[in-house]
Amino acid sequence: MYTYTQLRNFACRVFTKMGCPEDQAELASRALVSADLRGVDSHGVARLSGYVRLWEAKRINPNPDIKIVHETPSTAVVDGDAGLGLVVGPKSMKIAVEKAKKVGTGWVSVKNSNHFGIAGYHSMLAIKHDMIGISMTNASPLVAPTWSRERMLGTNPISVAIPAGKEPPFVADFATTTAANGKLEILQRKNKNTPLGWIQDSDGQPSTNPFEVKNGGALLPLGGDREHGSHKGYCLGSIVDIFSAVLSGASYGPWAPPFVSFLPVAPDMPGEGLGHFFGAMRIDAFQAKDQFKSNMDTWIKRFKSASVVEGQEEVLVPGDPERILEQERMKTGIKLLKPVEDDLSELADKFGLCLSAN
Amino acid sequence: MYTYTQLRNFACRVFTKMGCPEDQAELASRALVSADLRGVDSHGVARLSGYVRLWEAKRINPNPDIKIVHETPSTAVVDGDAGLGLVVGPKSMKIAVEKAKKVGTGWVSVKNSNHFGIAGYHSMLAIKHDMIGISMTNASPLVAPTWSRERMLGTNPISVAIPAGKEPPFVADFATTTAANGKLEILQRKNKNTPLGWIQDSDGQPSTNPFEVKNGGALLPLGGDREHGSHKGYCLGSIVDIFSAVLSGASYGPWAPPFVSFLPVAPDMPGEGLGHFFGAMRIDAFQAKDQFKSNMDTWIKRFKSASVVEGQEEVLVPGDPERILEQERMKTGIKLLKPVEDDLSELADKFGLCLSAN
Repeated sequence: MYTYTQLRNFACRVFTKMGCPEDQAELASRALVSADLRGVDSHGVARLSGYVRLWEAKRINPNPDIKIVHETPSTAVVDGDAGLGLVVGPKSMKIAVEKAKKVGTGWVSVKNSNHFGIAGYHSMLAIKHDMIGISMTNASPLVAPTWSRERMLGTNPISVAIPAGKEPPFVADFATTTAANGKLEILQRKNKNTPLGWIQDSDGQPSTNPFEVKNGGALLPLGGDREHGSHKGYCLGSIVDIFSAVLSGASYGPWAPPFVSFLPVAPDMPGEGLGHFFGAMRIDAFQAKDQFKSNMDTWIKRFKSASVVEGQEEVLVPGDPERILEQERMKTGIKLLKPVEDDLSELADKFGLCLSAN
Repeated sequence: MYTYTQLRNFACRVFTKMGCPEDQAELASRALVSADLRGVDSHGVARLSGYVRLWEAKRINPNPDIKIVHETPSTAVVDGDAGLGLVVGPKSMKIAVEKAKKVGTGWVSVKNSNHFGIAGYHSMLAIKHDMIGISMTNASPLVAPTWSRERMLGTNPISVAIPAGKEPPFVADFATTTAANGKLEILQRKNKNTPLGWIQDSDGQPSTNPFEVKNGGALLPLGGDREHGSHKGYCLGSIVDIFSAVLSGASYGPWAPPFVSFLPVAPDMPGEGLGHFFGAMRIDAFQAKDQFKSNMDTWIKRFKSASVVEGQEEVLVPGDPERILEQERMKTGIKLLKPVEDDLSELADKFGLCLSAN
């Protein structure tokens, strides 16, 4: 069991050892470990060694010159200079927020970046400014569009964070596939089958074997199959890809650079690095803040009080499970799986650090 | 069989008889009949009598004063003055486009409106301006969130239209449920069962009886059940509801006013009428137009050439099926079901019009 501070400090020191400036290492570790707090364990410190390997492969620039390469009053394209997405993300979201302060909304499309952790971390940055935050990113191609045998899209998550008044904020954060890759990895570790509708094999046939994705199979878009609306999940994943990568000049579709360093980047990449898309909308660019927040409170209370199906306690509002975990783990600490702990110990050895130090 | 022009002129004359000014009747009929052209038959002239009944119930104002009630350089809230959504929609989209011309993007949240036809009609209005168009709307509560027995949301569609170069545009347009209500109606007419994952009965249990939705059951969010990601469809429907209605001051969630005139509006509505949300993003607010369009062409061609599962011809790009139908129906005409034809004949009698006139 580790405290949040232990893990964050450790990640921060690893990023510093990679050559990140102090302030950027701080930003990155905050974004990374928010995943461990919120229960998205696959995207937290479990990925730290992956970032290190990408840096060793010279695919991550630890001291990037992140800059706006084109802009209008409400938009910008940011070049991440091959930096950590964990740093490029918060800096780009800040640009979106600054634009929203001036003209009501701000929209930033980002190229030449890397994996940015959980989408929800970035969208939530807007909340304290009384803004709605939006974030999305393209990702390693693992998903087959409806009727495709080929993997053409990433799990391309979308997050939307909306402030409320007395109630906690509404925070949606989800992969545009039936199940996120992290859930698949859990079943792989347990050697258990997946439900039908999560994956297909290399011929594009339905499968319940979680290892098929490693054998040329694919994750399926939200919906699972055509009859259950997989073309809609495919639409969502495509929109994320186009907003994040085609709009910014990043690499898109099947050419999105893979997160794992042992897979080479495509030789014919049509753009630079991974892409993200961020939005910030000032609440009072639409409506009086108090009025909006009071209506959000009504919305949330009404949904939570909806009558439930037998066996369930209450209808959840997006963000509830993650917030509850965050509060718990801030108090009781974060438990790591043995392979993750081993991974971090190796990093500690490599860089001469102590994992359990505060 | 009717020509597009016959149906559009008929709808236009019906709207004029309701008291719509000529230019608004023209706008509305164009938006309405685009659904018949694009194969979304449930949202076209089949709904004309529904709009007439809402007008008779004094819930549609045929000559509305549609105006901006609050704005910033990139945003506006529009009061639809209880007008036809088919008119309020294009007028609001125009405001979004004008704002995008000036500051890069434009975002318009609309209150006090009515059903706006197909979402795709509105988003596509941005394409000729070399902009990405976005449209969404809340709708009559028919959908149960994950674990809820109650119907709390509409089928709340999202459309995103993205210009390409030599290729036709990318047009996603989908309900945030497993299946749209129109598909359910088809099975009801044929007295056939639905697949599992489309609906639940009044106890919130899975059902395949398409009539259950009329007996207190509900449509299910995209995903179908928790194991297949229905919480993600629930997130999407909620985001549409909040952007369209909470942000504008329209009525939201279970209080969204029903389309059918025989259902009363809730006595305790927290806002005014139905809500929509529109966005326009200028391509060149992000990237050189030609560069973007050439990358979109590459994107589209790569997806269409992905290897397919056995029995399928090719991977489709969002918008393909609707565009193909539109081209066909423009040439060969539009076939109406007998009940729809009867409905229109009744309207012709009521208003002293001729259905088949050009």
